[in-house]
Amino acid sequence: MSLYSASVPQLTKMLKCLDTWLDKAEAHAKAKSFDPELYLGFRLAPDQYPLVRQIQAACDAAKFAAARLSGKEAPKHPDTETTLKEIRTRIQSVLSYLGTFQPSDIAGREDSLVELGFLEGKVIRAEDYLNELALPNFYFHVTTAYAILRHSGVDLGKRDYVGGLTLRDK
Amino acid sequence: MSLYSASVPQLTKMLKCLDTWLDKAEAHAKAKSFDPELYLGFRLAPDQYPLVRQIQAACDAAKFAAARLSGKEAPKHPDTETTLKEIRTRIQSVLSYLGTFQPSDIAGREDSLVELGFLEGKVIRAEDYLNELALPNFYFHVTTAYAILRHSGVDLGKRDYVGGLTLRDK
Repeated sequence: MSLYSASVPQLTKMLKCLDTWLDKAEAHAKAKSFDPELYLGFRLAPDQYPLVRQIQAACDAAKFAAARLSGKEAPKHPDTETTLKEIRTRIQSVLSYLGTFQPSDIAGREDSLVELGFLEGKVIRAEDYLNELALPNFYFHVTTAYAILRHSGVDLGKRDYVGGLTLRDK
Repeated sequence: MSLYSASVPQLTKMLKCLDTWLDKAEAHAKAKSFDPELYLGFRLAPDQYPLVRQIQAACDAAKFAAARLSGKEAPKHPDTETTLKEIRTRIQSVLSYLGTFQPSDIAGREDSLVELGFLEGKVIRAEDYLNELALPNFYFHVTTAYAILRHSGVDLGKRDYVGGLTLRDK
């Protein structure tokens, strides 16, 4: 078990899954003859982020996890996406960024200290950051995006969420 | 980083957070003068699990993670809960079970092989099971429970979701 194996491969897989949910959402909109761009504004509560912001937040959670665990500076994304094409480009951009990481970039950094912009004067161990904040926050936004699409009638199931597993023959 | 540090403490914390969301939900029902037991049947889509089943699934995901990572037999829970009191007892039961695990129960078992009842003839490395299935599935059901409560008007925010962090002074 390593900081890398617990982060980059799984963040990558889940963002790819999220991208396939958008394929299904676009197909559903086409079948029902409504504008698929409408999804981006859907939300589960008036004071909760809409889909576009959930996807931006999932992308940021993945990007910052890789950056902070490796001690690198994350690329900037100004959250200006307003179309499905743009938000899917954002996903691809973060997937490309994650693809630049090697296990050696993150290996052995469990005890390095991570600064969080929203917590002045505090730091958190890299391992605690991954377990307590980065992964829970990433899954929060990915699952909420999934929930918004399910609530909107898109035919998604647990297999779409989980994606492929590294199985072995018994 | 270890299989234990990536699982039991965080599963425990999140189930405790979930329990506090139910406090807030009960208070919201009281303030709005509706029966809080109604929450248990709420769902985000007709073909998605209602809240009670989301909580049962979150409890199972946590219980099976600890059991499978340690190679132990998980205690049985027959999914018969129909009241908030009963489902909260279920959460406490799983918290007690998680509390019986020591790091040494799980340490060094990354390469042990886990059998999954729903995948005949296949096994998965314990570490892959945690990263690819146990954690994503746990967070899926916890976040969906949160989303159902948010959608029902309960005043929850990201701090309720994330819970406490192991911060250090800078």
